[in-house]
Amino acid sequence: MYGRYWREMGEKARITIAGWQSMSYFSGGSDVCWFLEAELGEEVRRLHRVVGNAVTEGRHIVVGTGSSQLILAALYALSPRDASEPITVLSAAPYYSSYASMSDYQKSGLYKWGGDAEKYEKEGPYIELVTSPNNPDGHTRRSVVNRTHGFVVHDLAYYWPQYTPISAPADHDLSLFTLSKSTGHAGIRLGWALVKDREVAKKMTKFIELNTIGVSKDSQLRAAKIMRVVSDSCEQREGESFFEFNYKVLVQRWKQLRAVVERSGLFSLPTFSPAFCTFYGFAWLKCEWEVEDCELVLKQHNILTRSGKHFGPCAAEIVGQPREGGKRGDAESAGCQKASDGQTNDEGCGEQDGAEDDKEGRGDGETDDGGGEGEAGDHEKKSTEREEGGEC
Amino acid sequence: MYGRYWREMGEKARITIAGWQSMSYFSGGSDVCWFLEAELGEEVRRLHRVVGNAVTEGRHIVVGTGSSQLILAALYALSPRDASEPITVLSAAPYYSSYASMSDYQKSGLYKWGGDAEKYEKEGPYIELVTSPNNPDGHTRRSVVNRTHGFVVHDLAYYWPQYTPISAPADHDLSLFTLSKSTGHAGIRLGWALVKDREVAKKMTKFIELNTIGVSKDSQLRAAKIMRVVSDSCEQREGESFFEFNYKVLVQRWKQLRAVVERSGLFSLPTFSPAFCTFYGFAWLKCEWEVEDCELVLKQHNILTRSGKHFGPCAAEIVGQPREGGKRGDAESAGCQKASDGQTNDEGCGEQDGAEDDKEGRGDGETDDGGGEGEAGDHEKKSTEREEGGEC
Repeated sequence: MYGRYWREMGEKARITIAGWQSMSYFSGGSDVCWFLEAELGEEVRRLHRVVGNAVTEGRHIVVGTGSSQLILAALYALSPRDASEPITVLSAAPYYSSYASMSDYQKSGLYKWGGDAEKYEKEGPYIELVTSPNNPDGHTRRSVVNRTHGFVVHDLAYYWPQYTPISAPADHDLSLFTLSKSTGHAGIRLGWALVKDREVAKKMTKFIELNTIGVSKDSQLRAAKIMRVVSDSCEQREGESFFEFNYKVLVQRWKQLRAVVERSGLFSLPTFSPAFCTFYGFAWLKCEWEVEDCELVLKQHNILTRSGKHFGPCAAEIVGQPREGGKRGDAESAGCQKASDGQTNDEGCGEQDGAEDDKEGRGDGETDDGGGEGEAGDHEKKSTEREEGGEC
Repeated sequence: MYGRYWREMGEKARITIAGWQSMSYFSGGSDVCWFLEAELGEEVRRLHRVVGNAVTEGRHIVVGTGSSQLILAALYALSPRDASEPITVLSAAPYYSSYASMSDYQKSGLYKWGGDAEKYEKEGPYIELVTSPNNPDGHTRRSVVNRTHGFVVHDLAYYWPQYTPISAPADHDLSLFTLSKSTGHAGIRLGWALVKDREVAKKMTKFIELNTIGVSKDSQLRAAKIMRVVSDSCEQREGESFFEFNYKVLVQRWKQLRAVVERSGLFSLPTFSPAFCTFYGFAWLKCEWEVEDCELVLKQHNILTRSGKHFGPCAAEIVGQPREGGKRGDAESAGCQKASDGQTNDEGCGEQDGAEDDKEGRGDGETDDGGGEGEAGDHEKKSTEREEGGEC
């Protein structure tokens, strides 16, 4: 959906790389992450400063081949080396549909998927993946386990102004971001981690060294160029910023989607309090009739979705529909360091009841995300109860 | 060392990517590897056809973020899913210094490093990594285990005309190549596998999907451009090909290295029969005095090497010196489908005694690589015996 913006940018966002450039494995952008291009490191810090969505001071930047590789790098870095059994990896349902398979596909002796964080009752060390705003349901999330010996990884892929109000800069131990969700360039395969602890950053770097011996220089240089255009668009005095432009695209798409869904009478979408948002980064669509697998039904009509069952227990009749919709601050204050100002409009969203808690910790979390999301949460809970019975 | 060539290529090797291009996760280059760019697939097949170093007919191409990721993808794809214990990963010493750590860093329940393939005595399934020409010693290699229930992965990173005579197109079940060694573009992080079995190719693709959700489109497009320049240089009637040009650079560097080593009286380099080659892709340097760690000594003089101990047992006084030297067909026939013609010269190499066996199998291997390498093998064996005692 970001294509139109980047087409309009023309020359500004174009990159040229000569045959003799960036041939080496090595870069000079960090004393910890030896393959980070200096130019990318600078643009990452600048973009977070301009948008105001993350603290970068006192953080090491680790670049990855998309944030997928960084999730794995974080699991590797946080796993105790001398443990008798793998550390448990958790996330509150509904969770990003790939967390389970990513944690388990190597049958690692270091870490192991443990499922829904809400149901975790064991003692001992764990790693909780907190996606905020959440994929698939868009909720602002905080850690739910809150025990000692826990590590929290914040996956902040959607913490950008076109999706959500930026209430405060995230200030966690370990936060992950990705170009695919921030600027729309999934094909570049570029993510970055902001890491407080130097030793954790070094271990993540080691993981990426063993996994892919660094990250494509071409991807890093192109990402730096793209980010520069976004930051410039925020700092210019005239015209729309990248975030304002694309927020409007999302609004338009959600209008169309809501109209289609309402006309059909077959599906429903969550409704949110106008005090928060009227749309999310994903369309979390519910089939309003008895159905084995909603994904299959939609696929027969050439609509690509992912079944709710991949996102945690008890969500078979729900599908997450990626690349449609979004969640953000109100239209008038879209992005660029200015958090939402409390105004709302028909398609946008107002300020959250509680500002995001900047404090991070092992087991610490963010503050409540306000009443606006409760309604959506109830909606989903009801639907899953009906589908699966008392367990959920 | 390839920088000079690519500088001379100027515009020809330059790539420009607009901000709106290649934004998607998806590509259309293969029905198996869903993230392979069609353009890259075509250039891979063309380059192998022009050089004559690998059969691509009846092979699936799986693209990876460097060949490191493809080695891991191959281990994942070839590991039995229902086994009670991890499959053993082997390679004949001296072996690529990262094989052991790559196999073990995840503590995978699927595969596990088993060390020197020459010493493997167990029954049961195994995966043998055959690097040919070998890193670090440049020997042409074949499988040494030759049992049933074995899988062989051929790492052919150095099977290019600037390093070695191309006696016949490789025709294995699973071969790996990388841009870093073929054209010198390590920073692009781009490798490819030629895979006979569709199911294996699908599993390798799945690994890369879970690991990094595909491979940078920018890397793929740039790699395709670079490969096109190399293939064009081979097909043109006038001027030097890429391989001829860079072979000469290697010859010059090895001349200098040999002169320095001889003058010092402190080190030695393998000597090879002129019937084969007088230099290899790596300088496998031996310290000719009692020393704990040759790498450390050289580092104190700002010379970056990797200690022989990383390449298998009993090689502590030897260091592999990457990015120096090479091994190839004779100068007059450098590359571009023409194998060496048996002539030799002072710095080059002649034809191998035995042509490479094109047959592949689980446990099958290549033919003997001729007498030229025996001498180098003896040299190393002697040095390791002296270092570590009777075990080796």
